[in-house]
Amino acid sequence: MGTRELGLPQAAPASGLPSRVTIWEVGPRDGLQNEKSIVPVDLKLEFLDRLGEAGLSVLEATSFVSPKWIPQLADAEELLGKLSRRPGVRYPVLVPNERGLQRALAAGCPDIAIFASATETFAERNLNSSLDKQFEMFTPVVTGARDAGVNVRGYLSMCFGDPWEGPVRYDQVVAVGKRLLELGCWQLSLGDTIGVATAGQVEGLLAAFADAGIGPERLAVHFHDTYGQALTNTLTALRFGVSTVDSSAGGLGGCPYAESATGNLATEDLLWTLEGLGVETGVNLDELVATSAWFAEKLGRPSPSRVVNALAG
Amino acid sequence: MGTRELGLPQAAPASGLPSRVTIWEVGPRDGLQNEKSIVPVDLKLEFLDRLGEAGLSVLEATSFVSPKWIPQLADAEELLGKLSRRPGVRYPVLVPNERGLQRALAAGCPDIAIFASATETFAERNLNSSLDKQFEMFTPVVTGARDAGVNVRGYLSMCFGDPWEGPVRYDQVVAVGKRLLELGCWQLSLGDTIGVATAGQVEGLLAAFADAGIGPERLAVHFHDTYGQALTNTLTALRFGVSTVDSSAGGLGGCPYAESATGNLATEDLLWTLEGLGVETGVNLDELVATSAWFAEKLGRPSPSRVVNALAG
Repeated sequence: MGTRELGLPQAAPASGLPSRVTIWEVGPRDGLQNEKSIVPVDLKLEFLDRLGEAGLSVLEATSFVSPKWIPQLADAEELLGKLSRRPGVRYPVLVPNERGLQRALAAGCPDIAIFASATETFAERNLNSSLDKQFEMFTPVVTGARDAGVNVRGYLSMCFGDPWEGPVRYDQVVAVGKRLLELGCWQLSLGDTIGVATAGQVEGLLAAFADAGIGPERLAVHFHDTYGQALTNTLTALRFGVSTVDSSAGGLGGCPYAESATGNLATEDLLWTLEGLGVETGVNLDELVATSAWFAEKLGRPSPSRVVNALAG
Repeated sequence: MGTRELGLPQAAPASGLPSRVTIWEVGPRDGLQNEKSIVPVDLKLEFLDRLGEAGLSVLEATSFVSPKWIPQLADAEELLGKLSRRPGVRYPVLVPNERGLQRALAAGCPDIAIFASATETFAERNLNSSLDKQFEMFTPVVTGARDAGVNVRGYLSMCFGDPWEGPVRYDQVVAVGKRLLELGCWQLSLGDTIGVATAGQVEGLLAAFADAGIGPERLAVHFHDTYGQALTNTLTALRFGVSTVDSSAGGLGGCPYAESATGNLATEDLLWTLEGLGVETGVNLDELVATSAWFAEKLGRPSPSRVVNALAG
C-alpha cells in the first residue's frame, strides 16, 4: 500500500468549506526571492513547467523589482521571454512601481500584483513611503495596468502583526484594503508577513472585512509558518468562505532551521489538508511532491514541507 | 518590542472553544523513547523539573516497558525514585502489561496509561496480539490498577490511518475505545500514530464517539505532525469540545529531517495557538521555549518546533 492511501479516502467531505480552492502558487516569486542562492533561468523555467504539469493554475512567475534589491529575480525579462505559457495557467508577476509596470507591459503580462503595507512602519521601512503615500505610487500603476487590460491583484502585508508596531487593528487593515479595491484591484491577498496570527484573529479580520461590505470572494490569504500557524489559519479562512490560498511549492522561501526563515506555507501541506477534506484543487499531489523534492535537491537543501519529507524523504 | 508581543494581544477570545485546555506533556516519555540517544537520568530529572516550573500540570514521566525494547527508558525506577514531585503536577507512566504494573505500583505511581491498538494489524505487529486478545492483556492491568486506587488512561493508537490497513473505520475505533472505558479507563487519548488524519476525519470520529454516548469530556487527542496536520487537527478537536491535548515539549521525538520522524506536535506551537485564542493553559511559553532550546542543545540537534526556532533560534 502506498503512503498516499493511508488516510485520505476516509475523509468526510467537510461541511462549510468551499468545494474548490484555487492555489495561488508563489514559490517561483515569493519563494525564490527569499532563497540565498540565485537559481539559473533554465532551472526556473523547468520548475515552472513542472508546476504547471502538476495542475497548478496560477504560478506567480517573477517580480519586476530592481535587481539591486532582489538579484534572485534579475532575470525577469529573460524568464518571461523564454516561458512557454501553458493554456489555462496564469503567470502573474509582481510590480512595485511604474518602472516595473512598463517592464511587465513590455513583457506582455496580462496579470500583475502590487505589494502594499497595512501598517505605517512597514510602509516606511519596506516601501520607503507611508500608509498614504504608497497610494500615490500605486495609483498610476493600477490605472496604467487597467487601461492596458491587465488585471491587478493587491497584496496587503502585515495584516495581523508588525515587527515594529505589534498587533494591527482590524479597521486599519480594512481601510487600506478597501482603498486598494477601490483603486481597481480585483482581489486582495491578506498577508501575515511575520507569521504571528492565530485563528481568532483570522476570523476577526475576515468578519471586519465582511462588515465593510467586502466578502470572502474578493479575498485571498497568505500565511507564513514562522510559528506553525499557517495551515490552521488557512483552514479558518476557508471556513469563512475564502477560496484562494497563497502557498509555496516545497515551502520554498523559508527553512525552519535558517535564521532568515520566512516560512511560506508549503503547497503540499495545504494539499494534504484539502484532499483530506474533499476540496478540489486540480493539483496532483504526487507530481508536486516529486517536483519539490527534485527542486530541493537542486537547491542543495531539504524542503521544509512536512509532506515532501514524509513522501519523498 | 519582544517577538512575543507581536501578534498575541489582538486575538479575539474565540467562540466555541474550551476556556481552559489541559496539556498532557508526553515529551519525557513518548518523545525520549523515540530519540536516538539515551539521555542520562539526571538530565531527564532536570528536564522534568523545568517543565513543571514552566507550569505544565501533567508530565508523562517514563514507561515501564522492557529495557530490551526501549533502552531509552530503562532507568524508569531510578528516575521515579529520584523525582521530586511538584505539588499539583501529575506524573503518569506508561505500563504495557502486568509486569509493568507491578513495577509502577512498586514505584508508587498514582497514574498509569495503557497503550491499545484500534486496528488488527497494529495489534499484531506492535503488541504481538490481536484486537480481541489485547484486552486479555489489559484486563488484569486495569483491574489491578483500579484495585490499588490508580487511575488508568487508555491510549488508542492508529485511530485514523494504519500503515498496513489504510483508513480505519470510525465504528471500529469507537468499539475498541468503548471497551477501554468499560474496562475502567477514565480517559481515552485518540492517536493519529502516523499523522495522516485531516480535519474532516477528526470531526467524523468525534461525532461517532458522541453518537455512541462518549462525549468529548472523556477524550483527549494525540496528533503527530508527519504531514503537517497536527495543529489543525487539534484545533478541530477543541472546537468539538475536547479539552485535553497531548503534545511534546520542543517537538521531542520527531525531527522533520530525520528518517524516523514521528513528528509529535510541539507543545510550544500548540501554546502559541491557545494563547492567541485566549484559551488558558497555565503554562508560561517563554519558560517552556527556554527549556526546550536548552534541551535541544543537550541532545545536539535543533528542535523541530517552529515556535522554539522562531523565539530561541
